[in-house]
Amino acid sequence: MRLRQVSPDTEAHLIQTIERLSRKGILKRSSVVLSIGDDAAAFRAKKGFLTLVSTDALVEGIHFDLHYFSPEDLGWKALAVNLSDIAAMGGSPRYVTTSIALPGNKNSDWVRKFYHGMLELASQAQVRLIGGDTCRSSQGIFLDLTIIGEVKPSEMLTRKGARPGDSLFVTGELGGSAIGLEILRDHSRFARRHPEVTRRHLRPNPCNRIGRFLASRRFATALLDISDGLSTDLHHLCEQSGVGAVIDADKIPVCRVPGSLSGLLAATPLDYALNGGEDYELLFTVSPRLRSKIPGSIGGISISEIGWITREAGRCRVLRQGWSRRLLPGGFDHFAAQPRLPV
Amino acid sequence: MRLRQVSPDTEAHLIQTIERLSRKGILKRSSVVLSIGDDAAAFRAKKGFLTLVSTDALVEGIHFDLHYFSPEDLGWKALAVNLSDIAAMGGSPRYVTTSIALPGNKNSDWVRKFYHGMLELASQAQVRLIGGDTCRSSQGIFLDLTIIGEVKPSEMLTRKGARPGDSLFVTGELGGSAIGLEILRDHSRFARRHPEVTRRHLRPNPCNRIGRFLASRRFATALLDISDGLSTDLHHLCEQSGVGAVIDADKIPVCRVPGSLSGLLAATPLDYALNGGEDYELLFTVSPRLRSKIPGSIGGISISEIGWITREAGRCRVLRQGWSRRLLPGGFDHFAAQPRLPV
Repeated sequence: MRLRQVSPDTEAHLIQTIERLSRKGILKRSSVVLSIGDDAAAFRAKKGFLTLVSTDALVEGIHFDLHYFSPEDLGWKALAVNLSDIAAMGGSPRYVTTSIALPGNKNSDWVRKFYHGMLELASQAQVRLIGGDTCRSSQGIFLDLTIIGEVKPSEMLTRKGARPGDSLFVTGELGGSAIGLEILRDHSRFARRHPEVTRRHLRPNPCNRIGRFLASRRFATALLDISDGLSTDLHHLCEQSGVGAVIDADKIPVCRVPGSLSGLLAATPLDYALNGGEDYELLFTVSPRLRSKIPGSIGGISISEIGWITREAGRCRVLRQGWSRRLLPGGFDHFAAQPRLPV
Repeated sequence: MRLRQVSPDTEAHLIQTIERLSRKGILKRSSVVLSIGDDAAAFRAKKGFLTLVSTDALVEGIHFDLHYFSPEDLGWKALAVNLSDIAAMGGSPRYVTTSIALPGNKNSDWVRKFYHGMLELASQAQVRLIGGDTCRSSQGIFLDLTIIGEVKPSEMLTRKGARPGDSLFVTGELGGSAIGLEILRDHSRFARRHPEVTRRHLRPNPCNRIGRFLASRRFATALLDISDGLSTDLHHLCEQSGVGAVIDADKIPVCRVPGSLSGLLAATPLDYALNGGEDYELLFTVSPRLRSKIPGSIGGISISEIGWITREAGRCRVLRQGWSRRLLPGGFDHFAAQPRLPV
């Protein structure tokens, strides 16, 4: 781990603080041979398991704004989006490295707060910080985390296994992150009164427990997380599996918003649920034989059946009150309303 | 892998191009189970080996300037600095993930050129690109690579093993990168005439072969790469090993510069060699018993003995023509000249 933006003395002290924080609440893992402090970290992969690697960046002005993101929330979220990638493989997260580029006006106190937020979630998820690089940026904050996880080869779930006739499920509620963002950005007065709404954007909860449930029981045929929005991620699933999908709009678990806020929003709750993005819920398919095995919720997170997989490769449609419309990545195709529904 | 800054069609095409490039010249590795295209990459760690992980960021305006860095050179260098971290552990690099944040004026052509440069070195080093995240930045380019390597537990070399009496060695020549940077930045007319000088800054060659040589024969007691400059990295080695060091200035392999350039430089070649940074050569210690086993060069890269390890924990000194001076991270301590030399 390197902290290139601070003095050598501050660096040594800060690395000690981060190291101490990073051990808090984490079970002793003898699999880590070397952590923070050398040129690289070293760990021993668990025998018979695959190692999973994913990387996700957050850029100031693109993915977040410091007007409403505290360093603690940013640390939490940067890890959450990476944990979600491991959940989406059915794996268990194990290690994380962080790269942070900071402008000159952000000091070591900012770094400490960022790690506080990040390591709060790391401790919950039993993920260990094993390295990183903190350096200066000429403008704006840039965060990039790499998450390392593990999964048994026979349990790994990809985007590729969906088959025609499979049922489509989603976890939790959709659209809440986009609604939270809009409230934070455009209605900051309401943001303070409704932290339960903005929290979905600032501190998303990745679905690692449900991902492991689906993988360990081999219930799902394909799995991914919803980071770009249901309409876009459903296309990802269909493209990779070579199938199509139909979803029933009335079954989508749309995020509920307090009445006082709903009048402020620029779009309908269904629009946010379909196209909002950053919900970090899971989208998965289940064969007809196992469909009835999926519980209505796990650990307080609801699981909803919202549609099914078809043979029409790459083609997604949405039903509403007997009408069928083509669903494109990012939204409805308003020119493609069809009164009849071929399945 | 995600390319969030381009249209979905361009993304699919670009990912295909990168995927094709990334396989070029790379031996088929059945250990990669899942590469670009899903939520995470998956690989099988080699039995009995440790997995090494390191991450290094490059930020526009801090670590590079597009006035003199082509996208191809930047791709090469971003991977080189990461490969060097694996060399510094005595390990073999295997996989890499890339995160790139790009401002709106950089298009998919820029991304393609960046990957061309990066994958040229990846092919030489037999490293496979297994994932990444490309997104927009509001200002400036941010690059962050995570390299994954492997090493046998008994061969891993850290910064911790140096003992009093060990000899200190460095590979190659030092100071060339800093001199190249100065020429590129302040004397661009000369830069075009002397690509052999600027290449040390733009396209450093990591010392993975020498790192493996030292590790596989168990010749070194401690090893690290010189990224911050000899004076700083020598302190890192001494702090981690709890020792001190004396180096002989006359033995440091100072980078040679064409006569026509030497008059332009702001400092002496020794200053660049001690404090320049970004040379990505290796610094290592060898016990008295094995000292004579170290060859004068490996694969055309020289290896020079420059000093020895002492008991004076954290204290580094440099000798020159019978005089001894304290060496601080970043340079000489000009108030600490000592006429006599206690060892």
